[in-house]
Amino acid sequence: MILTVTLNPALDVTYRVPGLTLDATNRVAEVSVRAGGKGLNVARVLHALGYEVMALGLAGGPDGDRLVASAGLPAAFTRVSGETRRTVAVVADGGVTMLTEPGPGITPAEWAAFQADFARWLPRASAVVLSGSLPPGLPADAYAVLAGLAGGVPTIVDAEGDALVNALAARPHVVKPNVDELSRTFGAATSVRDGALRLRELGARAVVVSDGPRGLHADTPEGRWRAVPPYTEGNPTGAGDAAVAAIAMGVVGRWDWAETLRHAAALSAAAVRAPLAGQADHTAYRDNLAVIAAEPLEFEREGTQC
Amino acid sequence: MILTVTLNPALDVTYRVPGLTLDATNRVAEVSVRAGGKGLNVARVLHALGYEVMALGLAGGPDGDRLVASAGLPAAFTRVSGETRRTVAVVADGGVTMLTEPGPGITPAEWAAFQADFARWLPRASAVVLSGSLPPGLPADAYAVLAGLAGGVPTIVDAEGDALVNALAARPHVVKPNVDELSRTFGAATSVRDGALRLRELGARAVVVSDGPRGLHADTPEGRWRAVPPYTEGNPTGAGDAAVAAIAMGVVGRWDWAETLRHAAALSAAAVRAPLAGQADHTAYRDNLAVIAAEPLEFEREGTQC
Repeated sequence: MILTVTLNPALDVTYRVPGLTLDATNRVAEVSVRAGGKGLNVARVLHALGYEVMALGLAGGPDGDRLVASAGLPAAFTRVSGETRRTVAVVADGGVTMLTEPGPGITPAEWAAFQADFARWLPRASAVVLSGSLPPGLPADAYAVLAGLAGGVPTIVDAEGDALVNALAARPHVVKPNVDELSRTFGAATSVRDGALRLRELGARAVVVSDGPRGLHADTPEGRWRAVPPYTEGNPTGAGDAAVAAIAMGVVGRWDWAETLRHAAALSAAAVRAPLAGQADHTAYRDNLAVIAAEPLEFEREGTQC
Repeated sequence: MILTVTLNPALDVTYRVPGLTLDATNRVAEVSVRAGGKGLNVARVLHALGYEVMALGLAGGPDGDRLVASAGLPAAFTRVSGETRRTVAVVADGGVTMLTEPGPGITPAEWAAFQADFARWLPRASAVVLSGSLPPGLPADAYAVLAGLAGGVPTIVDAEGDALVNALAARPHVVKPNVDELSRTFGAATSVRDGALRLRELGARAVVVSDGPRGLHADTPEGRWRAVPPYTEGNPTGAGDAAVAAIAMGVVGRWDWAETLRHAAALSAAAVRAPLAGQADHTAYRDNLAVIAAEPLEFEREGTQC
């Protein structure tokens, strides 16, 4: 079973508006609502491919109930007294204006309750995925705490900034920032190579950086690879989450890194072909696997870092 | 007891954003939530001035529960299966961008249940206030149906367009559009005088038109008056609802129209001084009463229209 953790999920609300005018009243033509959060997207992609998953996280208030009920996944969220946040995507004139609410404040008792719930699922877990931002009130090293609790269960972290850097002390199996997150974490001048190196020096055993149309870069104890998707048109939201899902598949399947990165590129490109985050076009996934190869970037082995 | 009816209420959400950028992600710094709807605002103003009120309306889903629980009013909303809508006000850079969701679809059975609930409260009512838009599914003459059920209980209608025009067949005691609503109902070229006359010809016994800083105009069987507020700076949201509250006070207190219009101008100006819709600054209300007079516009009586 793959455990996904979404500590700061959101009810994703989409407003379709004929045209969005600032400082005026805009009538919303159509409202749609969906459980959101990077960890939930990872779980959805895995679940649709037949993997056994359990979605964990924090949820509160009526929107928290709704999030869990509508996730369409085996889920065991820990209840909090604050209310699950919303994101509002205003789709108008071909553009999307996002409004993201801050998450609810989490109390130390709620954080302790989550850790206890997480620990109860661990004996059945073959991998743990920790995704997204931390809500207010959680310690900055929350992901390190969970990776520490996971012990021998391989942990994949998809985060940025303090949440990412503080996770590294627990030596997570894989961290997967995208290039923008890498820039926001280490500065705009940081190259993919240098950022990945820095993350490994700070404790990550392997690093996968997603770089949109330029593909995925893996920096691992086995070597470095790049895999490039065969196309880039579509909906990029959730492509990174699909890459994380493939990394988890590689971890539990004990695939080598070249194979894992190939699947990650194929599955994230297949997610670009699907209309909603957390979905992947399975035909495109299969077709992509036939054409994508992971290209080795260097041949040296770095056995000392294993 | 004054009954207020809010058939299309909304949970009013306010997002404070440091700056709103179209087609980008905007982090919301602060979220506040409040029960919204013109009828609820009228009830709040009356309740704060010591009047016995009962807020009726339609509410559904968790946001409907929250709306009723947070209204801070005696309330008996009829439950519907659809979900109470939200409005989102994005406050940024000194401006307010509004996003208004459509209301939930109301079934014929739910509309019948509301009428039955409304009829149960009528024997205790001294006035009925019907405010705001109609949600999808209700007949266009919903306000005429309720005014007809009210029978001898004086009814005040604050609406626009079809909901307003269709209400007139039931000969409501007072209708109160603002000038923009009058324009949207009868065309931009319609003067306040002509619009009011037309509403009376179609069935309204009296008409009060609110015209922002230019004050309130009453066209009644007793004559025509204008009352102008002493200042205009502040928050105009809810000023019209405060005017409706004062009209209801005049109806139940059997004030003459000059006195009613004076109070309506004083109370709506006092609402402009208060931070939130549904509130009025009571000191400002008292002070305004000392300086506002209703100025007669013509002296002819129109006894035939009583």
